[in-house]
Amino acid sequence: MQKIHDPQVRGFASDNYSGVHPEVLDALAEANGGHQTAYGEDEYTARLQEVIVRHFGEGASVWPMFNGTGANVVGLQSMLPRWGAVICADTAHIHVDEGGAPEKSAGLKLLPVPTADGKLTPERIAAEAWGWGDEHRAQPLVVYLTQSTELGTLYTPDEIRAITDHAHAHGMSVYLDGARLSNAAAALGLPLRTFTTDVGVDVLAFGGTKNGALGAEALVVLNEAASQGLVYLRKHQMQLASKMRFVSAQLLALLDGDLYLRTAGHANAMARRLREGIEAGIADGSMPGVAFTQQTQVNAVFAILPEGVADRLRRRFRFYDWDAATGEVRWVCSFDTTAEDVDAFVGALRAELVPVG
Amino acid sequence: MQKIHDPQVRGFASDNYSGVHPEVLDALAEANGGHQTAYGEDEYTARLQEVIVRHFGEGASVWPMFNGTGANVVGLQSMLPRWGAVICADTAHIHVDEGGAPEKSAGLKLLPVPTADGKLTPERIAAEAWGWGDEHRAQPLVVYLTQSTELGTLYTPDEIRAITDHAHAHGMSVYLDGARLSNAAAALGLPLRTFTTDVGVDVLAFGGTKNGALGAEALVVLNEAASQGLVYLRKHQMQLASKMRFVSAQLLALLDGDLYLRTAGHANAMARRLREGIEAGIADGSMPGVAFTQQTQVNAVFAILPEGVADRLRRRFRFYDWDAATGEVRWVCSFDTTAEDVDAFVGALRAELVPVG
Amino acid sequence: MQKIHDPQVRGFASDNYSGVHPEVLDALAEANGGHQTAYGEDEYTARLQEVIVRHFGEGASVWPMFNGTGANVVGLQSMLPRWGAVICADTAHIHVDEGGAPEKSAGLKLLPVPTADGKLTPERIAAEAWGWGDEHRAQPLVVYLTQSTELGTLYTPDEIRAITDHAHAHGMSVYLDGARLSNAAAALGLPLRTFTTDVGVDVLAFGGTKNGALGAEALVVLNEAASQGLVYLRKHQMQLASKMRFVSAQLLALLDGDLYLRTAGHANAMARRLREGIEAGIADGSMPGVAFTQQTQVNAVFAILPEGVADRLRRRFRFYDWDAATGEVRWVCSFDTTAEDVDAFVGALRAELVPVG
Amino acid sequence: MQKIHDPQVRGFASDNYSGVHPEVLDALAEANGGHQTAYGEDEYTARLQEVIVRHFGEGASVWPMFNGTGANVVGLQSMLPRWGAVICADTAHIHVDEGGAPEKSAGLKLLPVPTADGKLTPERIAAEAWGWGDEHRAQPLVVYLTQSTELGTLYTPDEIRAITDHAHAHGMSVYLDGARLSNAAAALGLPLRTFTTDVGVDVLAFGGTKNGALGAEALVVLNEAASQGLVYLRKHQMQLASKMRFVSAQLLALLDGDLYLRTAGHANAMARRLREGIEAGIADGSMPGVAFTQQTQVNAVFAILPEGVADRLRRRFRFYDWDAATGEVRWVCSFDTTAEDVDAFVGALRAELVPVG
Repeated sequence: MQKIHDPQVRGFASDNYSGVHPEVLDALAEANGGHQTAYGEDEYTARLQEVIVRHFGEGASVWPMFNGTGANVVGLQSMLPRWGAVICADTAHIHVDEGGAPEKSAGLKLLPVPTADGKLTPERIAAEAWGWGDEHRAQPLVVYLTQSTELGTLYTPDEIRAITDHAHAHGMSVYLDGARLSNAAAALGLPLRTFTTDVGVDVLAFGGTKNGALGAEALVVLNEAASQGLVYLRKHQMQLASKMRFVSAQLLALLDGDLYLRTAGHANAMARRLREGIEAGIADGSMPGVAFTQQTQVNAVFAILPEGVADRLRRRFRFYDWDAATGEVRWVCSFDTTAEDVDAFVGALRAELVPVG
Repeated sequence: MQKIHDPQVRGFASDNYSGVHPEVLDALAEANGGHQTAYGEDEYTARLQEVIVRHFGEGASVWPMFNGTGANVVGLQSMLPRWGAVICADTAHIHVDEGGAPEKSAGLKLLPVPTADGKLTPERIAAEAWGWGDEHRAQPLVVYLTQSTELGTLYTPDEIRAITDHAHAHGMSVYLDGARLSNAAAALGLPLRTFTTDVGVDVLAFGGTKNGALGAEALVVLNEAASQGLVYLRKHQMQLASKMRFVSAQLLALLDGDLYLRTAGHANAMARRLREGIEAGIADGSMPGVAFTQQTQVNAVFAILPEGVADRLRRRFRFYDWDAATGEVRWVCSFDTTAEDVDAFVGALRAELVPVG
Repeated sequence: MQKIHDPQVRGFASDNYSGVHPEVLDALAEANGGHQTAYGEDEYTARLQEVIVRHFGEGASVWPMFNGTGANVVGLQSMLPRWGAVICADTAHIHVDEGGAPEKSAGLKLLPVPTADGKLTPERIAAEAWGWGDEHRAQPLVVYLTQSTELGTLYTPDEIRAITDHAHAHGMSVYLDGARLSNAAAALGLPLRTFTTDVGVDVLAFGGTKNGALGAEALVVLNEAASQGLVYLRKHQMQLASKMRFVSAQLLALLDGDLYLRTAGHANAMARRLREGIEAGIADGSMPGVAFTQQTQVNAVFAILPEGVADRLRRRFRFYDWDAATGEVRWVCSFDTTAEDVDAFVGALRAELVPVG
Repeated sequence: MQKIHDPQVRGFASDNYSGVHPEVLDALAEANGGHQTAYGEDEYTARLQEVIVRHFGEGASVWPMFNGTGANVVGLQSMLPRWGAVICADTAHIHVDEGGAPEKSAGLKLLPVPTADGKLTPERIAAEAWGWGDEHRAQPLVVYLTQSTELGTLYTPDEIRAITDHAHAHGMSVYLDGARLSNAAAALGLPLRTFTTDVGVDVLAFGGTKNGALGAEALVVLNEAASQGLVYLRKHQMQLASKMRFVSAQLLALLDGDLYLRTAGHANAMARRLREGIEAGIADGSMPGVAFTQQTQVNAVFAILPEGVADRLRRRFRFYDWDAATGEVRWVCSFDTTAEDVDAFVGALRAELVPVG
């Protein structure tokens, strides 16, 4: 097969528009050759288990899966009886971006809570955390967090601890969707366990795909008592890779050394550079009508643009509207975003904003 | 990440114990670099669509997925209303080897039919093909075939045509699970479409993983009218790859040239060599108590061994019992099985069978 | 079997605490005797079909079911492809009071919209009515209304028309949960079809149980094109009565004459009497701290009580807290509520509110 | 509502073609009047619980439901984790007559086993009882029996004990579908518990509807440890009656005294009379070409008729083909079948068989 695309083209649409980090590709080649037992009884998955324990502590167990939706749905299902419900932010990926997978493939009911910044708090959770024992109410038994959030914001370890304490006090478990957990680690400057295991998270998904993998997510059970039947659920939910060594090898490439931090840290830095470039433009008056709608804590920038600007910019750079009604857009940086990409984009934005005439 | 396994070890357990063919690995590298639209709007998936049309005819559409269970379940679900049922052999992968995925993740009812050789016929199908319009009966609306079958047997094009004619005459569609479709093509010496599109198959899965891919299956719709909603079902059934270019690239590596035939043909040849080696042993009296239970038409050999022999052989070669009650075992050859592997195995078998005197 | 309860005790907890209207009980006896074809091919179900057409117009078809949750879930499922979602008020019975049945037994995704009075509007619907064609979003294809609402409020025919026009213009159908449709008809003083068929509702549930039946709900399809597969769905969703003649007979008792209006009209009148009694108390200063939270348009009264009053009142009269956090309670009147019941209750409330000393 | 059917017409199609026994109708009237807490916290359901304990022993708990499919599906779901499967006869009601409800509304996988007489044995069960711990196999964790069976046959207490011993020894529970449990009790001449609780059955459904009730089935948990979450499952599977007192009253009418035995015993006796009448005809040569296909142990007779006879008989008496291919028919007697009905039918059969000469 020959290359048929232009490898020089990059945009700001999503971190899953990017490709595979070279070290991940090398790992696939290393894992190749000979026969390895299928369905997870291979040596790379065994090694991954050791690495996960190193990152998340004794008792952690890892369940490699194909994609984030799969890890979320299978993980949540393992935490809930058939009559369970999940409290989540109304911006949660499981609620707005997974095609109804939790409901349709797993029978999970979601109880979404309005938020402005994508973050839950004990108070927000409390609005839906009630009715245990009442058969007329799907039982709220899991709280779903995203770290970093779909809006590019971050929970501090203390904020997570406040939530897990609240949840546990009410008999609920806590699931953390870490599709961008590496970005959070890089931004917080903390070991992974410090803001997960150590603050009471029960189960999490560690995302590889958005951070340089080809397609690899790891469901990680931190509290064994909070999850049941994963070995069966993963299979019948169609997330069990036969040649699992190649999924595990991707995760090893990221996690055995510090690649997950290097890639995510770079993406974060590029987003910061993008924000600062635009902040400068706003400050010096060269970017009229531009305003930020969220903090830029990891690798995404959310902003409002004057009408028409987004579409004109998109002739050169791919990115998405976030809320077409308000003119809000989202720009995402990846492990392969370059400073030149950012600077060119900031320049193009400025050029579009300068009134003709 | 470093190599931690012995790439010289191979066995006869399964074609998914093998790794990735070097040309597939190269394809991943070619598809890398730059940004490509996620979720299937990339250039490799577009190219794959062209290649699929070349193989299966105008009107064919391709839906890359992660694994065979995913392709089967999503494909079947797209062919059936909520009240539908699937007629299949009682040896069908969807019935015996997918952890109940069709029922549990998709609400499909299966109507298994006893067979001796893993193959359906119009007569066998007729045993369950009745009750349309009766609300007390899940409606039999799809016939599921496997080509080559789970027992290593093959349908001729005429046999498939007889089934599709029968099915269509009764208002049913035909799904063909082609996890080993390449092995069938190599064994039949026929173009893919000759025993699929041209004989009335409506939807099929083309398997890459067992034949040298890392993890890639293609659902292929041959009859557009027979399948609905795939774009949504694939997503909420968690089979939509974000970086799909890398799934499509694997399939391109196999299908754009003749790699799928080279790999499958080699695996078939190794199984034939294995069978012939044992046949010779049976003929010359050096393999007492060994008997075949199925024809060897593709890359698997099924045989009965005297008690204790299988376990002793397994000290050197991995393979599975097929029916522990009868002493039946299964040996599978892969794209990377060598003639030396086969000869060593035949020799080891002979050695185990020679009575210690 | 002997009577073991006190038939003189009545409260204000729910209209399903009441029993069976004598005319409904008589209908069961009339339908008894001899053999009738099971599963709906009996003469009473055939007659019911005629009566439904008389009420709702040519083209209406009736599907008797056991209970309201069953009618809602089966009805909605018949209106949606597997990838569909339902826009509803966040107070909707299907969202807050059915134990997650839509998600868990039918895989339906709900998109709840905040409301203050339990009523949707085109504007409120628009907040979730978007994303068609986007596989990442469960497709919003049905709008769910309740008439009268869970908060005792009513839609006018014009309000429903505005919603159905909006929905249809966007390719969505409209389902109306009429667990208390008779109360709405009595309150509006309009024929059933005037605020359903004639204003564009596609499918509805007509509730018998809360209005004097023993257990009978009728799913009614007004727009044949909006619903598919009911004959099968009703069966596999376990809502197909074998001796259906007795379900249909209950609905006939209500609908063949004007019993549905007499019972519901009486319940509405008792709620009005209750409201007026309390309004008088508020006006004359004898009921300090009492305030209404919703209009009383049908048979329920929602009010805030001073702390402790509700629990003391409940020593004599059963009723439920609606929102324990705010002190809001709900009082429901039934077909068998008497003026004496209401007056006694108003008196008891006044007594509890008079300061001691 | 007025009577619109002919109460003198009876046939042999099904015991659910019959109506309601007068004592059951009386019970509905007794349970009427006043307010009773909805959803099962009424006095009749409490009394039913006492009566069930009397019949089935301390520890038994009762869960009234609308119909047999509902009781089966909810009961089985409560006995199985999400990854569970049910071993059943290939003639099992759940497999052939519930429209796929187990799979479609509950995600249960069935493992049907061929039988000639509708009865499982430890040996037949063993054919599917394997693969525990293997994620590729839906886990066989429940054995489903029907007593009396769909073919009108009976298990002895010893036969059931052999099955429950086998099941329990392999970590499986036993569910008994007792849609016609009363017929079995009458035929065996044994107390209900003697062939259920006392021989190791874990959960059962006691059917009221086919035996004189209007619509009432009782799921009965005999072994508390074998069932989880019924309170929630019954609700979200849409089987929770709001006015449950009227479902429970029907079951009380049957079970508080001996009505269940009187009605079932009569139906059994009528089937015996029918069989003996035909046996006499076969013996005296007046019924050429008629043969029985099953024993007549309860209230159903299965026979082969010469071609054309069934259709001619059906001009006067309703009954169903059981296997159109072989000319097998089924005749079912009910609580209201009379000796005259039977004798008239035998006479009509004889008349049809006499060759026109």
